[in-house]
Amino acid sequence: MLDSHPITSGNPKDQTNTPLKFVYDFSEGNKDLKDLLGGKGANLAEMTNLGLPVPPGFTITTEACRAYLADGAEPPSLRDEVSAHLATLEATMGRRLGQEDDPLLVSVRSGAKFSMPGMMDTVLNIGLGDRSVRGLARRAAAGQPAGGEAAAERFAWDSYRRLIQMFGRTVLGVDGELFEDAIDDAKLAKGAADDLDLDAEDLRALVEVFKEIVRREAGREFPQDPREQMDLAIRAVFDSWNGDRARLYRRQERIPGDLGTAVNVCSMVFGNLGPDSGTGVAFTRDPASGHQGVYGDYLANAQGEDVVAGIRNTVPLAELEHIDPASYDQLLSIMETLENHYRDLCDIEFTIERGKLWMLQTRVGKRTAGAAFRIATQLVDQGLIDMDEALTRVNGAQLAQLMFPRFDLAALAEHGGEAKHPRIAWGIAASPGAAVGKAVFDSYTAVKWSRSGEKVILIRRETNPDDLDGMIAAEGILTSRGGKTSHAAVVARGMGKTCVCGAEELEVDTKRRRFTAPGGIVVEEGDLVSIDGSTGKVYLGRVPVVASPVVEYFEGRIRLPEQTPVAGPEAGPATAGVTGPTTGSAVDPGADQPVADELVTAVHRIMNHADAVRRLAVRANADTAEDAARARRFGAQGIGLCRTEHMFLGERRELVEQLILADGDEERAAALEALRPLQREDFRGLFRAMDGLPVTIRLLDPPLHEFLPDITDLSVRVALAEARREPQENDLRLLQAVHRLHEQNPMLGLRGVRLGLVVPGLFAMQVRAVAEAAAEHVREGGRPRAEVMIPLVGTVQELEIVREEAEAVLAEVRAATGEELEVALGTMIELPRAALTAGQIAEAADFFSFGTNDLTQTVWGFSRDDVEASFFTAYLEKGIFGVSPFETIDRDGVGALVRRAARDGRATRPDLKLGVCGEHGGDPDSVHFFHEAGLDYVSCSPFRVPVARLEAGRAALAERRAAAAVGLAAERVTTA
Amino acid sequence: MLDSHPITSGNPKDQTNTPLKFVYDFSEGNKDLKDLLGGKGANLAEMTNLGLPVPPGFTITTEACRAYLADGAEPPSLRDEVSAHLATLEATMGRRLGQEDDPLLVSVRSGAKFSMPGMMDTVLNIGLGDRSVRGLARRAAAGQPAGGEAAAERFAWDSYRRLIQMFGRTVLGVDGELFEDAIDDAKLAKGAADDLDLDAEDLRALVEVFKEIVRREAGREFPQDPREQMDLAIRAVFDSWNGDRARLYRRQERIPGDLGTAVNVCSMVFGNLGPDSGTGVAFTRDPASGHQGVYGDYLANAQGEDVVAGIRNTVPLAELEHIDPASYDQLLSIMETLENHYRDLCDIEFTIERGKLWMLQTRVGKRTAGAAFRIATQLVDQGLIDMDEALTRVNGAQLAQLMFPRFDLAALAEHGGEAKHPRIAWGIAASPGAAVGKAVFDSYTAVKWSRSGEKVILIRRETNPDDLDGMIAAEGILTSRGGKTSHAAVVARGMGKTCVCGAEELEVDTKRRRFTAPGGIVVEEGDLVSIDGSTGKVYLGRVPVVASPVVEYFEGRIRLPEQTPVAGPEAGPATAGVTGPTTGSAVDPGADQPVADELVTAVHRIMNHADAVRRLAVRANADTAEDAARARRFGAQGIGLCRTEHMFLGERRELVEQLILADGDEERAAALEALRPLQREDFRGLFRAMDGLPVTIRLLDPPLHEFLPDITDLSVRVALAEARREPQENDLRLLQAVHRLHEQNPMLGLRGVRLGLVVPGLFAMQVRAVAEAAAEHVREGGRPRAEVMIPLVGTVQELEIVREEAEAVLAEVRAATGEELEVALGTMIELPRAALTAGQIAEAADFFSFGTNDLTQTVWGFSRDDVEASFFTAYLEKGIFGVSPFETIDRDGVGALVRRAARDGRATRPDLKLGVCGEHGGDPDSVHFFHEAGLDYVSCSPFRVPVARLEAGRAALAERRAAAAVGLAAERVTTA
Repeated sequence: MLDSHPITSGNPKDQTNTPLKFVYDFSEGNKDLKDLLGGKGANLAEMTNLGLPVPPGFTITTEACRAYLADGAEPPSLRDEVSAHLATLEATMGRRLGQEDDPLLVSVRSGAKFSMPGMMDTVLNIGLGDRSVRGLARRAAAGQPAGGEAAAERFAWDSYRRLIQMFGRTVLGVDGELFEDAIDDAKLAKGAADDLDLDAEDLRALVEVFKEIVRREAGREFPQDPREQMDLAIRAVFDSWNGDRARLYRRQERIPGDLGTAVNVCSMVFGNLGPDSGTGVAFTRDPASGHQGVYGDYLANAQGEDVVAGIRNTVPLAELEHIDPASYDQLLSIMETLENHYRDLCDIEFTIERGKLWMLQTRVGKRTAGAAFRIATQLVDQGLIDMDEALTRVNGAQLAQLMFPRFDLAALAEHGGEAKHPRIAWGIAASPGAAVGKAVFDSYTAVKWSRSGEKVILIRRETNPDDLDGMIAAEGILTSRGGKTSHAAVVARGMGKTCVCGAEELEVDTKRRRFTAPGGIVVEEGDLVSIDGSTGKVYLGRVPVVASPVVEYFEGRIRLPEQTPVAGPEAGPATAGVTGPTTGSAVDPGADQPVADELVTAVHRIMNHADAVRRLAVRANADTAEDAARARRFGAQGIGLCRTEHMFLGERRELVEQLILADGDEERAAALEALRPLQREDFRGLFRAMDGLPVTIRLLDPPLHEFLPDITDLSVRVALAEARREPQENDLRLLQAVHRLHEQNPMLGLRGVRLGLVVPGLFAMQVRAVAEAAAEHVREGGRPRAEVMIPLVGTVQELEIVREEAEAVLAEVRAATGEELEVALGTMIELPRAALTAGQIAEAADFFSFGTNDLTQTVWGFSRDDVEASFFTAYLEKGIFGVSPFETIDRDGVGALVRRAARDGRATRPDLKLGVCGEHGGDPDSVHFFHEAGLDYVSCSPFRVPVARLEAGRAALAERRAAAAVGLAAERVTTA
Repeated sequence: MLDSHPITSGNPKDQTNTPLKFVYDFSEGNKDLKDLLGGKGANLAEMTNLGLPVPPGFTITTEACRAYLADGAEPPSLRDEVSAHLATLEATMGRRLGQEDDPLLVSVRSGAKFSMPGMMDTVLNIGLGDRSVRGLARRAAAGQPAGGEAAAERFAWDSYRRLIQMFGRTVLGVDGELFEDAIDDAKLAKGAADDLDLDAEDLRALVEVFKEIVRREAGREFPQDPREQMDLAIRAVFDSWNGDRARLYRRQERIPGDLGTAVNVCSMVFGNLGPDSGTGVAFTRDPASGHQGVYGDYLANAQGEDVVAGIRNTVPLAELEHIDPASYDQLLSIMETLENHYRDLCDIEFTIERGKLWMLQTRVGKRTAGAAFRIATQLVDQGLIDMDEALTRVNGAQLAQLMFPRFDLAALAEHGGEAKHPRIAWGIAASPGAAVGKAVFDSYTAVKWSRSGEKVILIRRETNPDDLDGMIAAEGILTSRGGKTSHAAVVARGMGKTCVCGAEELEVDTKRRRFTAPGGIVVEEGDLVSIDGSTGKVYLGRVPVVASPVVEYFEGRIRLPEQTPVAGPEAGPATAGVTGPTTGSAVDPGADQPVADELVTAVHRIMNHADAVRRLAVRANADTAEDAARARRFGAQGIGLCRTEHMFLGERRELVEQLILADGDEERAAALEALRPLQREDFRGLFRAMDGLPVTIRLLDPPLHEFLPDITDLSVRVALAEARREPQENDLRLLQAVHRLHEQNPMLGLRGVRLGLVVPGLFAMQVRAVAEAAAEHVREGGRPRAEVMIPLVGTVQELEIVREEAEAVLAEVRAATGEELEVALGTMIELPRAALTAGQIAEAADFFSFGTNDLTQTVWGFSRDDVEASFFTAYLEKGIFGVSPFETIDRDGVGALVRRAARDGRATRPDLKLGVCGEHGGDPDSVHFFHEAGLDYVSCSPFRVPVARLEAGRAALAERRAAAAVGLAAERVTTA
């Protein structure tokens, strides 16, 4: 999850009228210019300025890309700027692009603001041609021991082969398989097992084959002009921004589609110049656990792409200490520099060219959810950051992920040497979580099965960007090759999907749709497997899962070093504030509880800080006393939505049927009277569970026919009975009622306040039950704080009528019981008209609760039941929206109405309480929006309460920081 | 139909901080203070200041009423103000209220801003008591010839009797029937036929009976304190503002519910002091025809209420010339004064007290629709008003009424003395129109039958406010008693309902639910009758109807004295402007056409003026060439909405079914290909009919399952067939598709642009058909101006994708045909989100057309199909809205979105064309709103086009006048 950001170029030239500067030397940028230079370019600049060994180069800005995409052509000044920077680079390096005797080679790499692994294209070795390849060979051999010529020759032709292959595929659109097949053919012809077994002559022949492939497939010669190579590669990077896979990834990650990418042109260094060369990736800490140490992979005599693609198996980074101790020490020192400089976990790509270490890339590294919390608190303890900063380093999506259940260790224990769920492999724990599903072996099947409701595990030898669809559809991903930095691992972590990679014991046969595990175990497509992304273990069958320790902590079943009360807003003055999870009323803090581990402690500390800084209160949507109690343990500060219709189901459905079929006022009144004591007990349970906290009770909302059988089913039943000449009296009577109440569009029919106005006594009964339950709870020493919510109001007149009736009932109950009752009367704002006339409606409402689900349905004209199945997939695929508006609030449409209604409502009644009770209340992005819109609270499902608390804290912090930035800017202006 | 007005008190004191003045003497007001003094009070003041003989009195303001209704008690200063004005009145009249030897009597009458006949309550003779009744008798006898004492005595007791009766009923809430029964008993006991046969002694006894009725029913004595009588009566008038009937009338007439009523306290004059006294009503012209002359009714020796209630039959006003020539001459002179002063038809209530004429009331009189047009042009010809003013004197509702069909005279002609539809009565033509329906004899049945779809004629001896529901439900009203000013006549004219009243030949027996006509004809409940409100004739059976002459005029089948082209906006420059009705292309102006009568000429002149002043263009919603041609004859300046789904019905349904059931791209493409030539022909017909004018074609909008059988019907059919073991293959296949496409809420499902994005080729086919039809029409020398409209857009991305596809198709057709085609691409704004993001959507739209039907459905969350049946009646009854938002646009909700979208859309694209194609386009109030919102055109059904043209003219005029008023005020400020 990434916050969406407005496009600001960050280009200082934006302030003036001078033409935009489209190219920056690495020495001109810094890490804060990500909008302009992309993440990779900004960090290359930062490292350059830190004095780290970065190969010289320059970055073409995202603005150039945006101009290209808008106009369909490069901006006119770009060519000259590139020429100027290239000339500088050539001067620095002492050789020219394409220089025959000693060619300057460059890489052309994409680099967007947000890291998009595998999405964008890279071309290495730009600058090579039929002539300069020989110059490169000579230069590579120079100064080498005798016999080095053959290796140098091989290196040069291999570099040329790679260039044609990458250029052909990414720039000219040639199918990459053709090149791979040609390599295989060459190896086969020679009986070679490995690429390294191909010698210079083989590679030279392969170059000719590759050129022929290009000629045939692309309809043009591979360009010999090195500048043309570079320009075409730059353009290809620009174009790749709008490639299908890139767009899909952006939608998945909520990255705006109009940012564009920067292009980095960097002088080549070579990890494939022999055994004293190599390439690797490193993390400053373990991205899975957060622990400090040396984490990474190294591959000798290879180019960087070989590591990331997971094609050859790497060695652990620690082994570099033995291979090249000097470079190893230098790397460790650089890693320390970077972590202290970035004050965060960094990941690094490096190359060693003949014993010289070069930094090719760094960035703040991706990490697992657990590591995010751990690292944040570790950095606080190291004094590198404060708690505010720690809060910004985690997010609700990560917290949600930590709350997923895990595999039940007991179920996995072996009984007499026989495991119920045999472990069939142990791979690399690449992305945590416990996933169970049916084995599928290709992306297409994964998507198809998942659409039909199956849970699947996508199993591949290794993944590549073509598997993205399948990865999105799957519960988890399992590969037999590649390390923690392989495509599968990186992408899965970004998605928060469970992933085990590099399970080398498995032989994956995608053609026959099965894999074989040690011991001859064969898993066919459709067989159940369970994968544990936290341990890397793979099991046969469905392993039972247990709650996460973080949930155990929220439930109060884990003892903490300290016990701090939650100091959030909206804690009623009569109670001593909402108590922290461990002192929740239903939990007895026994001594035999397990003590929290590092992760739980980190979560606890950060949650406490979020609670301390947030302004938004967090309530829960709960319909039962049990849910309410749990929500309270999770930190809920009240109930934001109790749906009373849920209380009308089960055995009470019969009473509701009586109510609907009632013949006249008397029968209806009798049915209501029968429901009242049941409702009263429901409410009393809620008041007890939320003693001292507000409990929002929504009066009956859905259309009455929802309590009756489906019209089609019943019609068929009646027709068949009649055909058999056995008509059922009751069915006939029911069918009559069903016909009477049938609606074309029940969402927009007789429901909510409309029901209350049309069915005499219905709302009065519910209000009476609320009031009586409150009175009883007062008598038993409690403090009930009822908020009665009238749904589906469209105009203030509706509310006035119901309010009048409700106030009369409340007055009666007050008089009858002698108790003072706290009962607020408010309304849902869930129709556009309610939002548009909120200023009028506030005259009759003590509070508003935004029903953003229904508001989304009416603002967009979407019936959620229908559209998610019928065209949402197409809409997401076409990029019409990046994320379903039912998941994250639509700021421009629904959001505009929420802001307007909040403003108009408060203008009428400054003390109007504003909340939201749609599902958006538990969505991180949406919580930020509701904070910005000035709401008092969000309400969400109990399980999302911690997420909302965390995000509410982050939103408050973001606002404070934005204000500080504005203040700082203002100060700067004042000083200047 | 009344325009809604904001509440402005008009009270000059409003500008300052001094307390409000709640009471105005008649001499203090004027006719422009209707907001403050009510219509009656303002006009009484005006007449007083004109020097006309008005009995002295004062008016309590509507502000006092509003304060009373808001607080539940009279404003504190009101009592003193009333006392002061009463003292002045007593000084003027030389006697005091309740003075025993010579009591001042007053009437207390309601008087709201808008006349609400029969709705509000009046009490006469306030000030009488057990003692002063004798003083009144003595004063009435004074100066009278001998023997006058008995008559005076009778008069005094009759007055007292009337006071107790009216006071008891309207102030104390006693059932009026009880008093009537007591009178009947008294008459029965004495064998009297008429009230006049009761003598003073009888009436004194009746007074005692009445007082006993009050004591028993109201639980209190009839108040003897005259001031208490007055205060209670004033309060009763205030209260009656919120009586059920008054509220229902206001909703029916769209009078805002919060205006309040004024109260007029007027010294009594008596029309029942003997044969030289009397009372009457008069019109300055015939309210049915507009002709000048002496129109009205007179009733000797009676109080005013007797005339209005229609209890006794009146004599024509002309007879007053013989009864009291002096008063008659004076009345005619006053009528001329009033008409010249008000520059309009006035109606008048007057009383003659012993030969002295008193004006009790005047107002601009109600009139029939035809009379409104006639009178407006007559006044222009008299030089009293100009054409602008004439335009304000008529409205679209009246025009619509004139367009109703009338009875076919041929069908009514007698054949050999045998009429096919015998005329069974000839009453008073009280409200024009031709109504046919089943006879019903009470309001309850009228409502019940009408709800089940029956057309009914409500037949009563006379109507009273309790019949209002039935009158609303009925096609027409027929009474056997009462004149043109009876309750039935006045209310029916206000409603635009056909009414024949005073058909004295009929014996109406409401108990046996039938009436008897001369010749022993008996009409039972349920028998068909036809009533002609323009002639007063009543026929047996269903008389065929023919078009109105106004429609004949619009159709060009009536020759006019002059032929002026319509000079409205939006006439394309390539054509010579939209031609007037009589030169419509399809009509041959033959010499044998009838020449227009006065009414048609009046309509023609006013329509021409409306066309000359309006800014809004008027288009029609038409799906066929025939409709389009007709619309053009009616003055439509293009097609604002062609619903292409209507072209998918009938025999083409099979092709649509093929499209839906298509298995794969090929079958689908084939089905689309089969539809394309049919669509092309449809469009060509439209382009021909609207040559040179814009034709807006909406791409397919409804969900596809609308073209398939109903899911329940089909399920039952399939189940029964299976039970019989005779499954139908095709039904099974259909049922599968129906299930696949079934939606919970089809209104909010897969339709509009969503279909276009999900069904490949659908929209492209339609766009291609449009383009090809346009190209063909160009080739045949025409000028097609196509506007392709994409429905249900919620976000600009949807529109961009469809636009791109459509532009590609247009380019292809342009290239293929070599024709330059005018095809604009725009969208419906029919979802709240479209309105909220109109600024973005305008980037991809050449025009917006507001779909206010769907916008109303989504803004309110109403499914029209469902809610109008299930709760709209309850909502109207409860006053939640005064008029259905589907009828007149909801300004606060839907209107707010329309204004916002218009503003934002034009901000993005200043030349954005804005129109509306919902049914509101033909609703008078809504047309005014669309004018104010700055739209370019409205589009409505062909038949409503003239109404929209007229109202567009009136809206332009209203805006101009408002601007002038602001200018005047500004000038005043500048001068001051």
